Amino acid sequence: MQKWCLDEKGQPKIDKGAENLCMDESEICFIDGFHSKLYYRGYSIEDLANHSNYEETTYLLWYGKLPTKSELDAFSNDLRNNRDIPQGAYDLIKSIPRDTHPMEALRTVVSYLGNVDPEKGKLGLDSMPAKAVRLTAKLPTVVAALARARDGKEPIKPRKDLSHAANFLYMLSGNVPGEFWARAMDVSLVLYAEHEMNASTFATTVVGSTLSDYYSSIVGGIGALRGPLHGGANEEAMKQFLEIGSPDNVDAWYKEYALTGKKRVMGAGHRVYKTYDPRAKIFREYSRKAVEVSGDPKLKGIHEIAERLENLVMSQLCESRGICTNVDYWSGIVYYAMGIPIEQYTPIFAIARIAGWSAHLMEYVARNRILRPRLYYKGMLDLEYVPIEKRG
Amino acid sequence: MQKWCLDEKGQPKIDKGAENLCMDESEICFIDGFHSKLYYRGYSIEDLANHSNYEETTYLLWYGKLPTKSELDAFSNDLRNNRDIPQGAYDLIKSIPRDTHPMEALRTVVSYLGNVDPEKGKLGLDSMPAKAVRLTAKLPTVVAALARARDGKEPIKPRKDLSHAANFLYMLSGNVPGEFWARAMDVSLVLYAEHEMNASTFATTVVGSTLSDYYSSIVGGIGALRGPLHGGANEEAMKQFLEIGSPDNVDAWYKEYALTGKKRVMGAGHRVYKTYDPRAKIFREYSRKAVEVSGDPKLKGIHEIAERLENLVMSQLCESRGICTNVDYWSGIVYYAMGIPIEQYTPIFAIARIAGWSAHLMEYVARNRILRPRLYYKGMLDLEYVPIEKRG
Repeated sequence: MQKWCLDEKGQPKIDKGAENLCMDESEICFIDGFHSKLYYRGYSIEDLANHSNYEETTYLLWYGKLPTKSELDAFSNDLRNNRDIPQGAYDLIKSIPRDTHPMEALRTVVSYLGNVDPEKGKLGLDSMPAKAVRLTAKLPTVVAALARARDGKEPIKPRKDLSHAANFLYMLSGNVPGEFWARAMDVSLVLYAEHEMNASTFATTVVGSTLSDYYSSIVGGIGALRGPLHGGANEEAMKQFLEIGSPDNVDAWYKEYALTGKKRVMGAGHRVYKTYDPRAKIFREYSRKAVEVSGDPKLKGIHEIAERLENLVMSQLCESRGICTNVDYWSGIVYYAMGIPIEQYTPIFAIARIAGWSAHLMEYVARNRILRPRLYYKGMLDLEYVPIEKRG
Repeated sequence: MQKWCLDEKGQPKIDKGAENLCMDESEICFIDGFHSKLYYRGYSIEDLANHSNYEETTYLLWYGKLPTKSELDAFSNDLRNNRDIPQGAYDLIKSIPRDTHPMEALRTVVSYLGNVDPEKGKLGLDSMPAKAVRLTAKLPTVVAALARARDGKEPIKPRKDLSHAANFLYMLSGNVPGEFWARAMDVSLVLYAEHEMNASTFATTVVGSTLSDYYSSIVGGIGALRGPLHGGANEEAMKQFLEIGSPDNVDAWYKEYALTGKKRVMGAGHRVYKTYDPRAKIFREYSRKAVEVSGDPKLKGIHEIAERLENLVMSQLCESRGICTNVDYWSGIVYYAMGIPIEQYTPIFAIARIAGWSAHLMEYVARNRILRPRLYYKGMLDLEYVPIEKRG
């Protein structure tokens, strides 16, 4: 009985968290968490951050190879031409109460976009790449419109002459960003685009494994990313730097909170990385450059807080306990430097990660098997149903 | 390298579909797929179908015990008092194009209800039971309003003096159902309320394991249930009976399609049940009674088609190949007898299964661990990034 949950000795073998579940073969992403390496389709994250952009990286993730010039032009144009969202979506954005969590609002609007997609109702792999282009193109438009609606501002319509990243920053503020800031956003989208079978990608895949529609899957991913154990880490890391307040307070804060276990250092520790997250290094460099480019002394202070705290983490927690600073530690400062409200960091994560969600969904569904694990039942059996008037 | 995906001999061990993943202990549901038994919290499905109702069964699933009279009254009243949906939800229902798949429309409206929930933004177990009551109460209102909007009809507001099941039928048609039909719907909700870690419950749990909000989890469940490998089976079974058309055609249809493998018998075969699904037996009896009560000769014909085809399946496919008729085989006929459009069967499944989704979510999150499996990477590494102008 319940043999699916028993080991050879007849003891329950429960894999809580599915950490030991190897759920599929994949050719998309490799994380070498012991040597600080991350690859998308075989290309190192450093090369992609240095040379690629979000559009090209998305093509790479979906189609398994770097595009030729004409392939990339066609793909980028397809994205540019699909940025507009229908009036119904703007109306819905207006009708969602302003104090709604941005990820919960995003979930609703993305679900609605599925209801008005020109290929709605179509299931399966055939319609998926086209739907993925449409929704990837529209996500920044939705996020920006929701962010502005939160402040009581009218939405700004997308422009076709800007890159994916630059257009997003333009729709947020109304100003076309300078080259450095557009590039910083672009690189951040590349760094967050994909990360193997993380919880939101898993949620996307579980939904998709019933052969449900593309939008249902992505809405599942957005819902999972909304959780503080997954998507909110860079927001929490940023709040932590602001709470510390000054570089001079770092040592005392660390001693008072981190060492005593009263607070965890946010943006440190990862299920897979047991050394420095290679993405953190790239974001740290962008944080440093942002201080330079902006010349903002407040930002300089925040960067120094993060540097000092990181030195403590890396020297005291990383090698000994495998708690090292990760991608979420530094990314928030880069967004903060752009003037983006902290609660928008997770929606930006979604704007990036839809590339990875879609890549894994397409790979999984091509050789699909419905995801249906088991539980070990340890309750009672054959209880007598006592009529309600006789219950104690 | 990749030791998480290798067995003792160093070979990749991939569990596609997570069939061998025992993801947690549980006290909610036990399926004995070899002896045609199903228990909710230790009570047999036959006892619950005979003596209980949806409200009591939901209480049982969530709180682990049958309620006393006063507990059940309080719980039922709580459900009754939360049936109304806000005007914003009705406006949204009107704005969703009529030809949208009912589950995709439901996904959007449920997500929106999360945006206007009085405890929105609250995460974790504390606010979950109250949110679960509110959404469980509202789901029939949303499904009925969407079903009517699809036909261009105005919604019918819920009534407080009817049971969960009777009120749903009332909101669909505008007529208070007779006792038999209300009871048939009620039993169908009991039978569909829960089924261990099926794919939609798994999706709900994966989303919830990031400690995301209740609505994000349920929206994930709705998305998974929308998939034809999961929620659509009773719709397909019903269409199959209509396609066969007459009891006299069953033998020829079976020979022509089922035996040759050209078509699968819909509503037969199950990942867990290898004998007759105990819920099918109960639904079959309700189908038989529905023929009697309605006196409808067309319905009688459909019932006879289903009986004859089932005899073939049970004698030829069940014992030998473990393909036996399941819950979805008979349930559609009961809904068909009520005059419910076929495309509403999966939304009704959702109205029932929110009880199980919520029960598992609350159980899992109480001892939470984020669900994050691994993949076996079999792609390339250390590829050289070739500049775009040099790509072939």
